[in-house]
Amino acid sequence: MHHSRPYNAEPPPAALAGLPITPLDTFYGRNHGTVPELDPATWRLTVDGMLDRPLTLSLDELRATFPERTVVATLQCAGNRRAGLTRVRDIPGEDPWGPGATSTASWTGVRLADVLAHAGLRPGAAHIAFTAPDVNEQGGPREPYAGSVPTAKATSGEVLLAWAMNGRPLPLVHGAPLRVVVPGWIGARSVKWLERVTAQREPSAGYFQAVAYRVLPPEADPGTAGPGDGISLGPVALNSAILRPGDGERLHAGPVEVTGYAYAGDDREVARVDVSLDDGRTWAQAGLDRPDGSWAWQHWRLTLDLPEGRSAITVRAWDTTGAAQPEHACHLWNPKGYANNSWDRITVTCGA
Amino acid sequence: MHHSRPYNAEPPPAALAGLPITPLDTFYGRNHGTVPELDPATWRLTVDGMLDRPLTLSLDELRATFPERTVVATLQCAGNRRAGLTRVRDIPGEDPWGPGATSTASWTGVRLADVLAHAGLRPGAAHIAFTAPDVNEQGGPREPYAGSVPTAKATSGEVLLAWAMNGRPLPLVHGAPLRVVVPGWIGARSVKWLERVTAQREPSAGYFQAVAYRVLPPEADPGTAGPGDGISLGPVALNSAILRPGDGERLHAGPVEVTGYAYAGDDREVARVDVSLDDGRTWAQAGLDRPDGSWAWQHWRLTLDLPEGRSAITVRAWDTTGAAQPEHACHLWNPKGYANNSWDRITVTCGA
Repeated sequence: MHHSRPYNAEPPPAALAGLPITPLDTFYGRNHGTVPELDPATWRLTVDGMLDRPLTLSLDELRATFPERTVVATLQCAGNRRAGLTRVRDIPGEDPWGPGATSTASWTGVRLADVLAHAGLRPGAAHIAFTAPDVNEQGGPREPYAGSVPTAKATSGEVLLAWAMNGRPLPLVHGAPLRVVVPGWIGARSVKWLERVTAQREPSAGYFQAVAYRVLPPEADPGTAGPGDGISLGPVALNSAILRPGDGERLHAGPVEVTGYAYAGDDREVARVDVSLDDGRTWAQAGLDRPDGSWAWQHWRLTLDLPEGRSAITVRAWDTTGAAQPEHACHLWNPKGYANNSWDRITVTCGA
Repeated sequence: MHHSRPYNAEPPPAALAGLPITPLDTFYGRNHGTVPELDPATWRLTVDGMLDRPLTLSLDELRATFPERTVVATLQCAGNRRAGLTRVRDIPGEDPWGPGATSTASWTGVRLADVLAHAGLRPGAAHIAFTAPDVNEQGGPREPYAGSVPTAKATSGEVLLAWAMNGRPLPLVHGAPLRVVVPGWIGARSVKWLERVTAQREPSAGYFQAVAYRVLPPEADPGTAGPGDGISLGPVALNSAILRPGDGERLHAGPVEVTGYAYAGDDREVARVDVSLDDGRTWAQAGLDRPDGSWAWQHWRLTLDLPEGRSAITVRAWDTTGAAQPEHACHLWNPKGYANNSWDRITVTCGA
């Protein structure tokens, strides 16, 4: 638990290990404001902006109008593994998330593409913006949460407006009655407690799109960064982490199974995962589970023969372009602590 | 010039510097067999496989049937910057290409998507294969050159069958009378001297798709690697290089403009380029030229105040997912020497 209000909680790494689908009570929670309690009876979704036929829909109407779809998708916060950056240099005002700011669920809802086609997207509607009633309480302006994705992504079949998670009604903390699920993109775009979908010419001007969730250069002051500064995060970069054993754990020497996840956002896939006992001088290849569809993480596992004493275990992944993760968090440090995808490292101590 | 037969030639870095479009006589050449001299009068393109209406077309028929399109696209060999890997450990049988195994041209032809739509792709045609008459002379089987791309890429608007380059007839060494241009993917898929386009269920079984152009793990023996081993290269990973000054150059101390290119394949874009004089401890941001469309590299430039004596200059790029290039070639070494996208480094010596 990083905070109770706003609710921000990360499962311990071991709770994610080996599970293709994360249980509802384990799924990470990242929020910028107090969870809003919306009354499903009076809640309506507004679909407006550059459309031929703007819509206002109850949840029942949404479900009755469009075909139901289920997608297994990993969500990953842009601040996942920030702790590795915080160890390089302090990041004031941001929580030191470990590798558990990511989880995977089976999401059920309707395709945003179907809703937008029904509403009739007009030419020039290059972005689809999402608005929710939760008001930011964590620095920056006190404004409702908002974000957007380009229309090309919004109209791809995998983006859902979801009311169910792992076959159960969407829990309140995960966005009930309806949330957006944007597979392959940073979790910040999968807006919870969705109230409005707007087709527009420009990206959302909301704080969490225009100012936050951007990789600033190291010398920038996040307190004075303006709209448009830095690299706006969207698709999730290649990443991997060790989930078991835990960092600092004491074990018996001998064969130890090391396991974790690897994930490549949007249109990339994980191609190989390597594990090293000598900080990357030599590597052994881990076995890689088949992903649960195109939008899910992959768990990997390798049994290492650990000697007595301390062992440093390092993991890195390669993607389908032949690209590997970068080595050191020190070279990725940025003032808001986003997108740490350096090699993950843990240390364990083995007794006889 | 790496070889005259087969013709393999790389421009010196400075010849690429600052030019959005590479002149025809400077554009790199990478071939596995002798350049075939095809008679345009008798040459025909065969379009066959899982199609409703297979086609056989002369160049005039191709030009008369489909609308003409022009795309500016960077091509990049998977072996670009292999020299950085060769310095880590020898790579027998492969040439030590520098940063010049990449160039950019304006290509004119017809969309492969239009040709395939005309021929009527059948369900299950997941890959589009290309075959050419040039027979491999550089190790591996003596078979004609072949490769394929997934149908989703082949039917994207940017993939061309091109007969012109920079507004001039396509030179023989670049594939006349017709070549494929697959923007954002390794050059090996932009098959020259194209004779056949085949819609099929599986990727090409050709040597250069099934066995070569794959990132093998370091311990693998490329001589015994079988079809399907390693990571099949497709989209080009984020990369950058210094083009001027040259590695080892002697200069006068004081302000020196450093310039080069940065490139991110397929659907990624370059978001930032950093230059360092202390091997990455601190960085300054380079100015980045606007790309000539979605499929072109970007040139960058920064004026550094170089002291007397030796200076090591390092460059790295970030892409639109907030991912940066990895640090060291030693961690990317692979038996065929592909996909070196580690930070580029040069050394210069400055006099008074």
